Amino acid sequence: MFSISPFDSALYRQLLSDKEAAAFLGDEAQIAAMLKVEGELALAQADCGLLPPDAAAAIARAAAGLALPAIKLAAGTASAGVPVPALVKALKQALPAEQARWVHFGATSQDIVDTALVLNCRALLALYEERLGRVVASLAGLAREHRHTPMAGRTRSQQAAPMSFGFKAAGWLAPLLRQRQRLAELRPRLLRVQLAGAVGTLAAMGERADRVNRRLAERLQLAPAPGWHTQRDSLVELADWLAMTTGLLGKVGQDWLWLSQTEVAEIGFSNGGGSSTMPQKCNPVNAEIMVALARHNAGLVGQMHQAMVQEHERSGSGWTQEWLVLPAMLMGTAVALHHAREALAHLRVNPEHMQANLALHNGVIYAEAATFALAAQMPRDQAATLVSAACQEALAGPRHLLEIIHERSGIRLELASLQRQLLDGGATAPWLEAILAEAAQPPLA
Amino acid sequence: MFSISPFDSALYRQLLSDKEAAAFLGDEAQIAAMLKVEGELALAQADCGLLPPDAAAAIARAAAGLALPAIKLAAGTASAGVPVPALVKALKQALPAEQARWVHFGATSQDIVDTALVLNCRALLALYEERLGRVVASLAGLAREHRHTPMAGRTRSQQAAPMSFGFKAAGWLAPLLRQRQRLAELRPRLLRVQLAGAVGTLAAMGERADRVNRRLAERLQLAPAPGWHTQRDSLVELADWLAMTTGLLGKVGQDWLWLSQTEVAEIGFSNGGGSSTMPQKCNPVNAEIMVALARHNAGLVGQMHQAMVQEHERSGSGWTQEWLVLPAMLMGTAVALHHAREALAHLRVNPEHMQANLALHNGVIYAEAATFALAAQMPRDQAATLVSAACQEALAGPRHLLEIIHERSGIRLELASLQRQLLDGGATAPWLEAILAEAAQPPLA
Amino acid sequence: MFSISPFDSALYRQLLSDKEAAAFLGDEAQIAAMLKVEGELALAQADCGLLPPDAAAAIARAAAGLALPAIKLAAGTASAGVPVPALVKALKQALPAEQARWVHFGATSQDIVDTALVLNCRALLALYEERLGRVVASLAGLAREHRHTPMAGRTRSQQAAPMSFGFKAAGWLAPLLRQRQRLAELRPRLLRVQLAGAVGTLAAMGERADRVNRRLAERLQLAPAPGWHTQRDSLVELADWLAMTTGLLGKVGQDWLWLSQTEVAEIGFSNGGGSSTMPQKCNPVNAEIMVALARHNAGLVGQMHQAMVQEHERSGSGWTQEWLVLPAMLMGTAVALHHAREALAHLRVNPEHMQANLALHNGVIYAEAATFALAAQMPRDQAATLVSAACQEALAGPRHLLEIIHERSGIRLELASLQRQLLDGGATAPWLEAILAEAAQPPLA
Amino acid sequence: MFSISPFDSALYRQLLSDKEAAAFLGDEAQIAAMLKVEGELALAQADCGLLPPDAAAAIARAAAGLALPAIKLAAGTASAGVPVPALVKALKQALPAEQARWVHFGATSQDIVDTALVLNCRALLALYEERLGRVVASLAGLAREHRHTPMAGRTRSQQAAPMSFGFKAAGWLAPLLRQRQRLAELRPRLLRVQLAGAVGTLAAMGERADRVNRRLAERLQLAPAPGWHTQRDSLVELADWLAMTTGLLGKVGQDWLWLSQTEVAEIGFSNGGGSSTMPQKCNPVNAEIMVALARHNAGLVGQMHQAMVQEHERSGSGWTQEWLVLPAMLMGTAVALHHAREALAHLRVNPEHMQANLALHNGVIYAEAATFALAAQMPRDQAATLVSAACQEALAGPRHLLEIIHERSGIRLELASLQRQLLDGGATAPWLEAILAEAAQPPLA
Repeated sequence: MFSISPFDSALYRQLLSDKEAAAFLGDEAQIAAMLKVEGELALAQADCGLLPPDAAAAIARAAAGLALPAIKLAAGTASAGVPVPALVKALKQALPAEQARWVHFGATSQDIVDTALVLNCRALLALYEERLGRVVASLAGLAREHRHTPMAGRTRSQQAAPMSFGFKAAGWLAPLLRQRQRLAELRPRLLRVQLAGAVGTLAAMGERADRVNRRLAERLQLAPAPGWHTQRDSLVELADWLAMTTGLLGKVGQDWLWLSQTEVAEIGFSNGGGSSTMPQKCNPVNAEIMVALARHNAGLVGQMHQAMVQEHERSGSGWTQEWLVLPAMLMGTAVALHHAREALAHLRVNPEHMQANLALHNGVIYAEAATFALAAQMPRDQAATLVSAACQEALAGPRHLLEIIHERSGIRLELASLQRQLLDGGATAPWLEAILAEAAQPPLA
Repeated sequence: MFSISPFDSALYRQLLSDKEAAAFLGDEAQIAAMLKVEGELALAQADCGLLPPDAAAAIARAAAGLALPAIKLAAGTASAGVPVPALVKALKQALPAEQARWVHFGATSQDIVDTALVLNCRALLALYEERLGRVVASLAGLAREHRHTPMAGRTRSQQAAPMSFGFKAAGWLAPLLRQRQRLAELRPRLLRVQLAGAVGTLAAMGERADRVNRRLAERLQLAPAPGWHTQRDSLVELADWLAMTTGLLGKVGQDWLWLSQTEVAEIGFSNGGGSSTMPQKCNPVNAEIMVALARHNAGLVGQMHQAMVQEHERSGSGWTQEWLVLPAMLMGTAVALHHAREALAHLRVNPEHMQANLALHNGVIYAEAATFALAAQMPRDQAATLVSAACQEALAGPRHLLEIIHERSGIRLELASLQRQLLDGGATAPWLEAILAEAAQPPLA
Repeated sequence: MFSISPFDSALYRQLLSDKEAAAFLGDEAQIAAMLKVEGELALAQADCGLLPPDAAAAIARAAAGLALPAIKLAAGTASAGVPVPALVKALKQALPAEQARWVHFGATSQDIVDTALVLNCRALLALYEERLGRVVASLAGLAREHRHTPMAGRTRSQQAAPMSFGFKAAGWLAPLLRQRQRLAELRPRLLRVQLAGAVGTLAAMGERADRVNRRLAERLQLAPAPGWHTQRDSLVELADWLAMTTGLLGKVGQDWLWLSQTEVAEIGFSNGGGSSTMPQKCNPVNAEIMVALARHNAGLVGQMHQAMVQEHERSGSGWTQEWLVLPAMLMGTAVALHHAREALAHLRVNPEHMQANLALHNGVIYAEAATFALAAQMPRDQAATLVSAACQEALAGPRHLLEIIHERSGIRLELASLQRQLLDGGATAPWLEAILAEAAQPPLA
Repeated sequence: MFSISPFDSALYRQLLSDKEAAAFLGDEAQIAAMLKVEGELALAQADCGLLPPDAAAAIARAAAGLALPAIKLAAGTASAGVPVPALVKALKQALPAEQARWVHFGATSQDIVDTALVLNCRALLALYEERLGRVVASLAGLAREHRHTPMAGRTRSQQAAPMSFGFKAAGWLAPLLRQRQRLAELRPRLLRVQLAGAVGTLAAMGERADRVNRRLAERLQLAPAPGWHTQRDSLVELADWLAMTTGLLGKVGQDWLWLSQTEVAEIGFSNGGGSSTMPQKCNPVNAEIMVALARHNAGLVGQMHQAMVQEHERSGSGWTQEWLVLPAMLMGTAVALHHAREALAHLRVNPEHMQANLALHNGVIYAEAATFALAAQMPRDQAATLVSAACQEALAGPRHLLEIIHERSGIRLELASLQRQLLDGGATAPWLEAILAEAAQPPLA
């Protein structure tokens, strides 16, 4: 084995890969799942009267027990362009001729590869769901804890108006809840058996074909399905979900990078990466990786869509392109969730810096709020004009916006009261509550 | 207006763009929808007691009646980076000062742009659904009509085993049915109002904020929603659906290109494009465009995922990137569906060529079927070995595979009977029926 | 014409499109260039004795004088999948039959479209070069002016060590100089005539074929070339250059967004975009668009690479995909250069904020410099350990790093002297000089 | 190590990876190159009087001799987000304290990683050049051998006009020659040392900074250079070259897939992949992989352009994204070249099938040639009209085009003579010669 990809490298393994997810990816997991499918196929065929029961039992036993190192299949894979012929051969060699002849009966290579992939994906979906649940719980905790912690809301890279840090956290959380819903919806479309034979008609299994498909599905706890050899929509839907998950985490990571900049310093990470020459550095490694993986998956997902254009009943090129792309997306998503979890576990919130940043530039961030407050006592346009002029003066320094407004209008606005309105007012409370309530629901089955 | 993009060009309009879809894209549609949102916002605010009812009515009337050419907003759009401030200014100018001051009250530019986009998307979804329905119906017709028309199934660019053309058409159809299902699922997530104010808290609307959000949603027949200014998952989900739709059509178009090659000639198009110097040419233009748009949308969808990484409460760069991408995807999908419909209307099926191609290379395409047929009368491995040797002889020519098999085994297999088994046997019939039955269902609401 | 794409919209024209570049893109520019090629082709063929000189002259005159609105070619373009047959027909109709018969003699549609594209690209390359020259000059001015203006260098989103703003500007500049070099290299590969006939052999022009190719090239001041109908490397190389240019500008724009944040405020833009409700806002619109276009072109460039996979002598799908992508990249690059120029013209540098940010966190940014300074008087490891501990204290602190170091080591390091070393020391001066010297060179022809 | 990526898997290693290229990719190659850079850096610093010569020599020796398994650096890499701090620590541990303190003196992690990458890229460029040379030679051989072998030229998936197979091979070859030229141009921009210190000023090396940069470059036989930590254009240029190379090979592979289809059968591959159930199958695996890798690299190259947007002096996210992308592109290119070489070694040309396909549809492929031949004896428009009508009759069958023309015009055109003109006429000969002459040149240094 080489280590071309950081997902495989020993060097980058703890940074950019994930042991738990690796258990369902890579050579061993693929071979194990393919053998499982071959074994269950034989049993399903026997259940339908297509194979002698004892042959099926022998095949299933052999498949379960076979130690088949990947390297043994390498030459066969290179020659056929797919590992199944070599795997079938190896499985046959482990059996007496009389039983061996029933191995892989009427199936095509892609039936085995695709169904094995679906089985491994099922395990990975469970892993994502578990990690997503933990990230959801952490973010919900943040949202609850900091619902009254004031900070600057920022639009187009400029301070815009005050809000609470808890509300910001709820904004990170909300779309992850929709991801759980999407996961529940795509699951039945993805977790389908692939068993359709040479050109998708399963002709070699004769009149029992559909029954075998259903029986195999049942045995593997998948849904039965007409063949989908060159209908790749369910895998692309999975890829879309993966890239959307990492994209949402990438947005969070990006926020964290901006918030933890030296000059902003509103959050920090106690596990930040050090530098050999700059002892003061504390690099937000988790957040960086979340952004990098978001952009990586965003790049890869387009390839999965490109690979949909597969000619006829089976395409060597389009299918191979999937192999180059989907495993990386599956792993990248697990890694991004891991880093999100890690970052959340080491997140340090600095309310004082949030407050200090709100006070920058003589309170101009309260301009909109001041306008609305004044509008209770004068025509709104007049309030807007007054505040706008006051802003210019405040930005030029040295006096505070509210002081200038007081001087110009005679109206004294209280900072604390404005801030309280901003934190608890508007739709903050009902929306935060709604998001937290939904986060508290168990994920859809 | 320029014509940089083929979607806008007069030259390419009939080839690469679509008038019906254009009604919901482009300057006029955007301005109309934004004015609609401003008008309904005022009415919703009046409903909630935030605005004087007569001011709201005046605003709604002015918004509905305002003739606002895009060019008038160009300078303001360039200066603000978004068209709303200029549009609000123009709307105010159409009203007396007393009413003008209530225009756009407490909203932010992105509230208007996003909600307007959602309204236009709703109309486009209806258009897609209608076109998809027609493509589904045509394909279902093909599948029914040709369920007994034999042709070569092809895998990895080689003839593999016989199947029916109707079954092939059913394979084009099946994933489009899943697209209808996905559309029904994404619709409620997409068709949500955006109304959240400067930093997403809708603070400027005070304690009535959530109520106004709900009321505006009701008026526009959208779902109410907490702000999603930098939670772009619903738009990305739409983009995923668009790219998946064109990807599925691209696969069909690709099949059509392969099937209509001069040397294959199993299908043709009566509306093929001519050549100025080669009178025999009949270029499958519709199919080519379907492939081109599949790959175009596949490229663009990655950008929508990239654009998810939007910092803080609103991102100038990520949001602008969406504007460069999503309209092209929305139009491209409409155009691809149009070409699919056109191609299907002009499709000519050539069963004789299908039959002739099946007969190429002395019948080796029946190898798998012959093996299974022989296996009824001898051990399967022996059958496989016999057929494999017979294939080599048939490929070397000049005799037919079944003739050679007869000579070598004494068993006479009938071509017609083999073919019948292949066309009607296996899972062909139940799967075709299931797909046709689902196609006959009305789409989910 | 529609306005689906912001590049074409009247609404977004001043923000996201460019009038000067549009002169070489879009319907009119394409039709004019195609007519030019048809006219020059006839003249070149006459020069080589293939056409009667007076017929050629008449064709060239007609082509030059023909008013041919795009809409007239729309139906023909839709039917043939390419505008040339309709254009040839229109040109023939403008001529007597005797001369008309020589129009487009022996050429194929793609010859005309590709050569016309190359002509328009040549004009665009000149436009890019001119704009690039201005951006280079502005950045060189900044680098010179601010070579002694201290600011924080930042790595992994954290302050790392001091540097000068002029050096930072030189870092924006340096790769643009390499882009000028790359442009000079790609130009001769791109500016080649396409004239190769139906399948690339130019067979219809008989033994004069190569001579006509050379003569047409000469007339158009392009290089002669064997056909490249499905060898798209020169266009892809152009696309790579475009995406690299916008990528480099996107990096600059991204830096500007980070530097102009409210909390950093080291630079600002006097033309920042306003907000209707937040009078203090000054949005860095130019920089945002630079980032958006960088990511847009980065997404599109992959499509140009995808479109290289064109089957046989001409591909309807791959070629069409180029039409959907390349014009957008050509325009996007012009727009990005425009915004870079605009932003530079309105850039305001705030040396006081740079100095203030350097002073944040009690001078820990001087840690590396202090370590090296101390290392002159004690073993380096000891210095490193001491500074590292001092950093922790300073970060916790209220005291300044140099004060703590003094207390712990008895050595008094002077801030001003450290800063001077950092600004002028190391490789700063020679590298800045080298970059400025190269920037002062005229671009390669 | 895992095997998530097919580039690393034992299962897919012989199909989708490459042992020779792997020697310059992956953990071992990276660690070795990084140690090499650390050692040479110390020697260069000693050469410039910055380090005691014996310390430098000791460091270089230790670096050369150190056995440093990747796994030992995994935890440090995960913590710092980059392997260098752990590697420096390990190197220091292998030295006495007095010498250890000079390890990595004044450098930053990215200096080491980037320079090491450049060293490995240099080796890979040599490998590409060698393989490209072999592919060029094979294609040149094909072009020479088959310059008189007639076949159908095909445009828009339809037969268009006859040409020679040799000319087609020359069309595959020509752009590869331009790739050699581009490689020579990018090499000096890529093969530059990275040594710039914490924020790019190399301040820690004081007044000797530039000299050390030059000396290190000299020692490593690279060019000296100001730092390019966040100027990623040279790596992106490399990525562009890689994707362009695989794109060109993908176009060739695509042609091979179309030509080797069962119904076309103009070429075949003696090493085609078999099928377990269909003995007649001979899958063009090499060509499929070439297409798959073309589309994979085309997808990845956009990510390298995305990753150019790196903020400030060093970006954790953009840089990490490169690590996920560039190694895959470097490997993919080596693998694609391998498959091209393999396919060419096993390519079987079937001139009889080429001839037979030319004869399909009653000779309508000669329509253009017939028109031009007739035009010698009648007005061209009249010839065109006559041939067009004859084509329709020929397509409707059963008579041959030339027979029909004879009947309608009294003019007898000879097929053999038409074919000869098509194969040798036009620009075929001079262009083929020019391409072969250039292919015979040695590559640029």
